[in-house]
Amino acid sequence: MSNTRINAQLAFLTEVDKLKSVVRGTTLCDGSRKENSGEHSWHIALYALVMAEHANRPVNIDRVIKMLLIHDIVEIDAGDNPIHGNHDPVEMARIEEKAADRIFGLLPEDQRKAFRTLWEEFEAAETDDAIFAKSIDRVQPVVSNLATDGGSWPEYNVTAEQLQTRVGVKVQKGAPAIWEALKARIDRWFAEHTTAS
Amino acid sequence: MSNTRINAQLAFLTEVDKLKSVVRGTTLCDGSRKENSGEHSWHIALYALVMAEHANRPVNIDRVIKMLLIHDIVEIDAGDNPIHGNHDPVEMARIEEKAADRIFGLLPEDQRKAFRTLWEEFEAAETDDAIFAKSIDRVQPVVSNLATDGGSWPEYNVTAEQLQTRVGVKVQKGAPAIWEALKARIDRWFAEHTTAS
Repeated sequence: MSNTRINAQLAFLTEVDKLKSVVRGTTLCDGSRKENSGEHSWHIALYALVMAEHANRPVNIDRVIKMLLIHDIVEIDAGDNPIHGNHDPVEMARIEEKAADRIFGLLPEDQRKAFRTLWEEFEAAETDDAIFAKSIDRVQPVVSNLATDGGSWPEYNVTAEQLQTRVGVKVQKGAPAIWEALKARIDRWFAEHTTAS
Repeated sequence: MSNTRINAQLAFLTEVDKLKSVVRGTTLCDGSRKENSGEHSWHIALYALVMAEHANRPVNIDRVIKMLLIHDIVEIDAGDNPIHGNHDPVEMARIEEKAADRIFGLLPEDQRKAFRTLWEEFEAAETDDAIFAKSIDRVQPVVSNLATDGGSWPEYNVTAEQLQTRVGVKVQKGAPAIWEALKARIDRWFAEHTTAS
């Protein structure tokens, strides 16, 4: 085994350490601070492992976990874009493509290609594995927000309708049973925090 | 699917969020702060994925990744015990067993058993999968320390001999090529920071 190959792999693994410094919109479940994208990636890989049985269609959980381990790496260059924030999706896609070029480009060619392909599959959200992975990625912040009395929802002025459109629909597509189980808690929170206009 | 089952799974996934608040001995690769065990778990799962080809014996990388995703969960109750720190291993094992009882006990019975068994396999470090997983767990802090001019080594008064005995031997057991590739950098650092006594 050549050291050149190992050194390229270590350069990639050292570069992705920066994901631990990308701050997300949601907080930890105790509200103590905002979550970073590194620990979020661990958490949702574990979510997927525990929740695999709730996938709407059969998935290869090992592929889903790999997808989730790498899904946010482009944020090192592109930053996190909260689902309830406002950003230009075309411009974001361009920036994330460039980030993927640079960061996965640190790997040996065979691994660069494999990781890039897996990330593109996640982004496209068309295969059963990617649809389930996206559902899991969307559900974890909802659980955190419920654990912290709405968490980042007030900050982003999220309404019950918006949560359903931007999050619920996507969770339902890959893991409807999970959304079903959360729905009562979500409805209760919004009922308590929405004033008639 | 009963909500009872999903609620148990969500209770577990919410509880393990606390792993993001368990602070480790090593810092991030930019030295900006100490790493937590949640983001560390993500990082080494990715390390394993990238470095699988360097395993000394054939491993099932999907099992290794699962093992690494759950390997530190007991630290929520037991805390992190730096490899170069001093603690009573028998007492620590007792505390970690109790933590495993409590935390994995939040899961539905079939998953409690599966996760507990996988964690015990990791701890025993006897199977090829567990030996490789342990190697990866040990090598990541070394890379971080090298990236930050020795990182936590001065704090723990680590000598070259101690690093070889407590870390090197274990990395070599599961992934000798990785240790080989790091050896020159490690030797250089200790040569520059060790004064003749």
